[in-house]
Amino acid sequence: MQFELTKEYLDSLELAIEQQDREWIRTNVLELHYADIAGIICELNHEDGVFLYDLADESVQGDILMELDEDLRELMIKSFSTKEIAEQLELLDSDDAADLISHFSQEEVEEIIAQITDSETAEDIVDLLNYESDTAGGLMQKEFIQAKIDWPVDRCVVELRKQAEEVEKIHTIYVVDDKNKLLGFLSLKSLLFASPKTKIKDLYQDKNVISVKTSADNEDVAKLMEKYDLVSIPVVDLQNKLVGRITIDDVVDVIMDEAEKDFQMASGISENIESNSSVFHMSRARMPWLLIGLLGGVLSAQVISGFEGGISAIPALAFFIPLITAMGGNVGVQSSAIVVQSLARGTDQFGSVFKKIRKEALVALLNGILLSTIIFSFAYVFDSPTLGFVVSISLFTVIIFAAIFGTLIPLMLDKYNIDPALATGPFITTLNDVLGLFIYLTIGILMFGI
Amino acid sequence: MQFELTKEYLDSLELAIEQQDREWIRTNVLELHYADIAGIICELNHEDGVFLYDLADESVQGDILMELDEDLRELMIKSFSTKEIAEQLELLDSDDAADLISHFSQEEVEEIIAQITDSETAEDIVDLLNYESDTAGGLMQKEFIQAKIDWPVDRCVVELRKQAEEVEKIHTIYVVDDKNKLLGFLSLKSLLFASPKTKIKDLYQDKNVISVKTSADNEDVAKLMEKYDLVSIPVVDLQNKLVGRITIDDVVDVIMDEAEKDFQMASGISENIESNSSVFHMSRARMPWLLIGLLGGVLSAQVISGFEGGISAIPALAFFIPLITAMGGNVGVQSSAIVVQSLARGTDQFGSVFKKIRKEALVALLNGILLSTIIFSFAYVFDSPTLGFVVSISLFTVIIFAAIFGTLIPLMLDKYNIDPALATGPFITTLNDVLGLFIYLTIGILMFGI
Repeated sequence: MQFELTKEYLDSLELAIEQQDREWIRTNVLELHYADIAGIICELNHEDGVFLYDLADESVQGDILMELDEDLRELMIKSFSTKEIAEQLELLDSDDAADLISHFSQEEVEEIIAQITDSETAEDIVDLLNYESDTAGGLMQKEFIQAKIDWPVDRCVVELRKQAEEVEKIHTIYVVDDKNKLLGFLSLKSLLFASPKTKIKDLYQDKNVISVKTSADNEDVAKLMEKYDLVSIPVVDLQNKLVGRITIDDVVDVIMDEAEKDFQMASGISENIESNSSVFHMSRARMPWLLIGLLGGVLSAQVISGFEGGISAIPALAFFIPLITAMGGNVGVQSSAIVVQSLARGTDQFGSVFKKIRKEALVALLNGILLSTIIFSFAYVFDSPTLGFVVSISLFTVIIFAAIFGTLIPLMLDKYNIDPALATGPFITTLNDVLGLFIYLTIGILMFGI
Repeated sequence: MQFELTKEYLDSLELAIEQQDREWIRTNVLELHYADIAGIICELNHEDGVFLYDLADESVQGDILMELDEDLRELMIKSFSTKEIAEQLELLDSDDAADLISHFSQEEVEEIIAQITDSETAEDIVDLLNYESDTAGGLMQKEFIQAKIDWPVDRCVVELRKQAEEVEKIHTIYVVDDKNKLLGFLSLKSLLFASPKTKIKDLYQDKNVISVKTSADNEDVAKLMEKYDLVSIPVVDLQNKLVGRITIDDVVDVIMDEAEKDFQMASGISENIESNSSVFHMSRARMPWLLIGLLGGVLSAQVISGFEGGISAIPALAFFIPLITAMGGNVGVQSSAIVVQSLARGTDQFGSVFKKIRKEALVALLNGILLSTIIFSFAYVFDSPTLGFVVSISLFTVIIFAAIFGTLIPLMLDKYNIDPALATGPFITTLNDVLGLFIYLTIGILMFGI
């Protein structure tokens, strides 16, 4: 059965660690999946975490390390000697090893690499360090299985056995020519069921071979794998030579990170933040949006001060200022969210901009009529028929404008290659505040005849 | 090379369809990956789309169908006879077949099922239709490979060959006992490299076998597969009998849908909306949040009207109403976004609530001091030192409160099993508006001594 981390379990574990009860730990902790052990370490204090980590089987230590939160992982590694780090690296897949080592300084990296005993591993890691972390090259691993096109099946199985030792999960065998150029792929299934003397060239698939260049963007790799339902994708260099592969588990992480980034950006947080980031870091990530909000507030103050006479005459005009700004913001954010998502998914490639705006305008029209009617009755009863007309007409106008801007701005940003997720959140809210106030107060002084 | 859909390509294709140039279509379209053909059909009008679909190879028609947008897919299927639909179903994986057929009425389903010639396929589909679509049972497929624990390797290969015909991608072989109870798993790799007489029981892995029950929630399945880096996961019934498997590509879709839902909810859209949903549907999905916003605006109006005397005396107080509400909203949404995400990821299980609130309060303190200082100088110059003090002290207080509420509310919702994504967006904004105004105007009349 799956392991579940409970408060009781943690209490027993802490007691076991205190009493150095290695037997309890061995049966109740070390038999677990490495992802669970990592989850447990995250809940312990640093000292207990290191203690548990040291007890774990050497073969899973590297995997545990990779499953830890980034901060905790760094904290842990800092307590290792370069020799110990080198040993861990040899046990990891090359992509994880490169990730792990990339947080060290140039000098430390050299020192650690020098301690790696297997020269091929060292070479692979050094090679992977050359790629930007947000590209296919930075995501790929050097462990993959390849077969030459002119091998027969039996030779292939022998060669694969050699290669397969270091490849944890085989998803697909890549078929290459003499110069390592990628030609196609072969499923393990077809190999398993083929007769020994069949040539690879008669078995492999060369149609619709999907690959990516090392320089391809992370997100594009994720989109490709999602679109074509791939479990792994081969990575090739400029000459189409096979240099690595990317597996779906790494891409799932990319997809989740991307979704988090979009969500945070829409919520006005400009850097990637975990709930365990430092206070200063968290403050800095939020500041840009708050400053835009502040600027919006200042502009709004200036708009309202331009109507100071009107507000002196009819103070009730001030009552509905928050309603107008809030509704403009809400409608704008809703419209932009839909556009941002359809852009992120890359659908509607040729769907015309005009069609989108027309649809949003229709939705806004429907919502505007309904909401204005409600607010008219309220403002009528609350203050006066005139205020009822002012508020409802303004609200209607603001809703239409907010919907149109909410649609247009992300589309425009996208056209100029700026991440449209910027558009949702404070930016659109702020713009709609200023515009909404202007519309509301203008209608107000016109209708009250001030 | 990967196919790229361009405007020129589409123009040529439309011309080819018009001129019934089957040769051009065969070489330029039908050779493509089914996902690309589906992408092309999405861009064509219905008639041309159907024409292209009919030309496609029968073996990929089902796959093309599954890649289409849901609306388009339904439109397309409606033009088929039940006999044609039954034929398509036989070519699809059982999970896709069940999805496809689930949109028909009970009577139509019965009619279609009756037309399926292969009785096993029909049974599988009928069985899958029993599960809720958002559970593991609704997500799983009936195509998987299993081996009995007491088989030797050579028998296993023979049996697998029989089973494997209908299983498109083999990720893992599941090992079961006589009663079909799941015992463990076996990689194809170990099978490929084992000697023919080795028993499965000496090869398979029984440690850390991760499986899910048919009733497990979709999202929990996704979390498990992500946590344990799985490519497929076995699904078992209450007696631990193996009944299906879920592959990672289906889970990637779940993860992306979930991220979209959260993003939309945070943006105030209550139902899952695609950019091609109907105007009425879109309007309805947005209405709940807009009504909450309207209610917030009405409450704000009441708060301000309570201070009418103050605003009549000092109209400048009205100037900074939008600033106070906007900043309260922004800070609240930022704080809640972080909490919502860490809850969604299921991290910090035992991280105490108090620690989170303290941290948010510290971030708010830092941001509050900075922003209040800026706004003090502005309001001082803009109007008067008193207004400077009123605005800056209020802003500071509002920021602190907004941060604390933004953290507390999602945590509380989560405790009562309400989706905390509800908390971001209009709900928190509205609450902070009302509270912020009250604080601001109270401080205003106190300091101006009205």
